Amino acid sequence: MPKTAGIILIGNEILSGKIIDANAAYLCRELRELGVEVRRVVVIPDDVALIAEEVAAFSKAFDLVFTSGGVGPTHDDVTIEGVARAMGVPVVRHPELVTLLERYYRETLTEAALRMAEIPEGAELVVAGDLRFPNVAMRNVYVLPGVPEIFRRKFDAMRERFRDAPIHLKNVFVRIGEGTLADYLNALLGSFPLLAVGSYPEFSNPEYRVKVTLESRDRGYLEQALADFLGRLPGDAVVKVT
Amino acid sequence: MPKTAGIILIGNEILSGKIIDANAAYLCRELRELGVEVRRVVVIPDDVALIAEEVAAFSKAFDLVFTSGGVGPTHDDVTIEGVARAMGVPVVRHPELVTLLERYYRETLTEAALRMAEIPEGAELVVAGDLRFPNVAMRNVYVLPGVPEIFRRKFDAMRERFRDAPIHLKNVFVRIGEGTLADYLNALLGSFPLLAVGSYPEFSNPEYRVKVTLESRDRGYLEQALADFLGRLPGDAVVKVT
Repeated sequence: MPKTAGIILIGNEILSGKIIDANAAYLCRELRELGVEVRRVVVIPDDVALIAEEVAAFSKAFDLVFTSGGVGPTHDDVTIEGVARAMGVPVVRHPELVTLLERYYRETLTEAALRMAEIPEGAELVVAGDLRFPNVAMRNVYVLPGVPEIFRRKFDAMRERFRDAPIHLKNVFVRIGEGTLADYLNALLGSFPLLAVGSYPEFSNPEYRVKVTLESRDRGYLEQALADFLGRLPGDAVVKVT
Repeated sequence: MPKTAGIILIGNEILSGKIIDANAAYLCRELRELGVEVRRVVVIPDDVALIAEEVAAFSKAFDLVFTSGGVGPTHDDVTIEGVARAMGVPVVRHPELVTLLERYYRETLTEAALRMAEIPEGAELVVAGDLRFPNVAMRNVYVLPGVPEIFRRKFDAMRERFRDAPIHLKNVFVRIGEGTLADYLNALLGSFPLLAVGSYPEFSNPEYRVKVTLESRDRGYLEQALADFLGRLPGDAVVKVT
């Protein structure tokens, strides 16, 4: 079974339209490239009970879970507490993280900043790449911060641990509309029921009208399906295949 | 009670990182401006059962629900079917929509394209603004297409029907870090427990270190809270208030 993943974005600022999230799109693309199938993304408020509920459900439903946001020293940073509650464990202060914070802040270290040394009891500290501060993983749940530059640096440092068999993709660009195309897609899926097929119209593109995507983990199956599809389409319908 | 909303994005292409959604961010910002509080956003695959489950849950939990994507003539356009199943009604072909499609496609109208005349039985056709094709609303669920230009045009045409009392916002930009700021925020929330307070660090901004947002539907309460907060902060901490 290929690996599946879910992404939980935590932050009132996303729901209220103050900031535009960039982390989900980044993670969807990166995980796909790694062969991991993202099945669900959710955006929820900075609320311990909601975070706990969502993390518990995602952790059961998917092989990998990533959270983004709600990590830091202020009152609205409650992700660690939510993850701990989801797993039924207390929040504890990790001595190694305390040492790192002491070294970083020196005499300006406050009690509030020490919240960043807190983890769900039993969580793993993932030391990877050139990270100064390790990542926190509680069972299959990876806790990442919301700030995009840091989110990416922290994910990139450990990305290879998530790699699975690749998902192969072919794009067929056609100059016929979706109304006409639909029958060809149905015929294709009749012959290749395991194929993942997408159909994306482009209303303002002069070159083609629809991009059709064919995907499979089995390269041979994909090649056969592509040949079948190209054989069925009217000769002048295909603009290009990539 | 102020209006709440949930947003359901439907599309494998978002989860697989092929396209970056722009509709959720747009809707979060617009709804906020209208005084509507978005409580949850979810991205799910083009799967009838999942859509039905999510739409049923959102429709119960929130005053307004918006779906984006999965509307069209091809095999992966199953949103209408999902919404119908969520509400326990069949999908029916609406004569008025058939007429509109006949007028638009003329002799090129296919059986597949006629799927765009299908609605959940009992759904409302929302005729608004200069829309050529009406919006579909099933109880509190508004079904919108995924293509951003069309999504916006269709939402904008009916946006005024969602307006509620405004949410007032003040931004305080400070040059102290979150570790120090946390105590001031906790004190503020101690005195003004109904205030919504956000704290957003900016690591690469030379002008300030954290943007603090104070929000309330009650303008007087917000003004009092702002005065209290500014009175507590060290005099040189505040960069600006907007």
